[in-house]
Amino acid sequence: MKYGARNQLTAEVTDIKRGTLMGQVKLKVPADAEMASVMTLDSLDDLGIKPGDKVRVIVKAINVLVVTE
Amino acid sequence: MKYGARNQLTAEVTDIKRGTLMGQVKLKVPADAEMASVMTLDSLDDLGIKPGDKVRVIVKAINVLVVTE
Amino acid sequence: MKYGARNQLTAEVTDIKRGTLMGQVKLKVPADAEMASVMTLDSLDDLGIKPGDKVRVIVKAINVLVVTE
Amino acid sequence: MKYGARNQLTAEVTDIKRGTLMGQVKLKVPADAEMASVMTLDSLDDLGIKPGDKVRVIVKAINVLVVTE
Amino acid sequence: MKYGARNQLTAEVTDIKRGTLMGQVKLKVPADAEMASVMTLDSLDDLGIKPGDKVRVIVKAINVLVVTE
Amino acid sequence: MKYGARNQLTAEVTDIKRGTLMGQVKLKVPADAEMASVMTLDSLDDLGIKPGDKVRVIVKAINVLVVTE
Repeated sequence: MKYGARNQLTAEVTDIKRGTLMGQVKLKVPADAEMASVMTLDSLDDLGIKPGDKVRVIVKAINVLVVTE
Repeated sequence: MKYGARNQLTAEVTDIKRGTLMGQVKLKVPADAEMASVMTLDSLDDLGIKPGDKVRVIVKAINVLVVTE
Repeated sequence: MKYGARNQLTAEVTDIKRGTLMGQVKLKVPADAEMASVMTLDSLDDLGIKPGDKVRVIVKAINVLVVTE
Repeated sequence: MKYGARNQLTAEVTDIKRGTLMGQVKLKVPADAEMASVMTLDSLDDLGIKPGDKVRVIVKAINVLVVTE
Repeated sequence: MKYGARNQLTAEVTDIKRGTLMGQVKLKVPADAEMASVMTLDSLDDLGIKPGDKVRVIVKAINVLVVTE
Repeated sequence: MKYGARNQLTAEVTDIKRGTLMGQVKLKVPADAEMASVMTLDSLDDLGIKPGDKVRVIVKAINVLVVTE
């Protein structure tokens, strides 16, 4: 299984919030950094994930914004 | 300075590739994970980054795809 | 502070709608054009914005669709 | 003709840069603000735009990042 | 009317779900494949679509993820 | 293997164009509709695809723009 995207991290689901149409998944990536994903509840239910599950996180490089301070 | 996005990581620039119109920045995030960003060369030049620089990486949660294996 | 994105406008927050998981911010850009941003309520609360506040609006060029009529 | 997106601006094409695969279009929106769009050369050629042409610019609200300073 | 995007399909609206802020449109594309779009309720109301309507579906190529199994 | 995205089509690679930094993949989906994906050459090489290969095409519903005519 290969993905056409530069950013591929493994993560642990830490929390799931369900809205009326969309859902939000909190994720812990290595070194205790936190990430989050938003998707439709339909997709969330298809995934069938729960806190503690290991998932893969995919982000296309074009969606990564770099900021300098 | 605050960003309306759930994913905010600090990263170190490790490599920069320049195409004819777009540029690709390789980034090291904590725990030696690698990420990448693609932007226009115009934006790359505005940023003025070089390998070794510390940057902030911003990704909206909607652009994060979760995959289970 | 520099952003790796071509589109950077200053805007004034004119209205905020809160859903159950996501929020929508209405923005007035120069010449009375209107824009809008959608984000998670978590991000909206982190921003702490209210109508009348001045914000910066960032859009990567790849997310701009050009249409001819 | 209606678009399922919150951000719809009219703009004038001011410059076009052609890379090897992608193209970049500079746009002037009201009040002399500048925007930019990146697309494939295939799409650029389909559009058949040139500097001075009036176009419509569409951005989904989810792709608009709000930043406070 | 031309769009600066590589992916342009005709589709039929098969179902519409309204959340509190966002809406989800189910679409049938040729060969009975299903697609879906999420947008703000504001945009959904502007479109004024209902099941059975024919619409055009636009996706920029950069938002298409290719996966091999 | 499950993906947190509403749009999942099977497709056949019909053509690959390589730029200097980005690559473009042409895809045939059922009923002879055509789609396209743009990614970095790095991702294209990781995928290792060639014309004739079957792939899976993933698009998050938020990246699907609906237009009525």
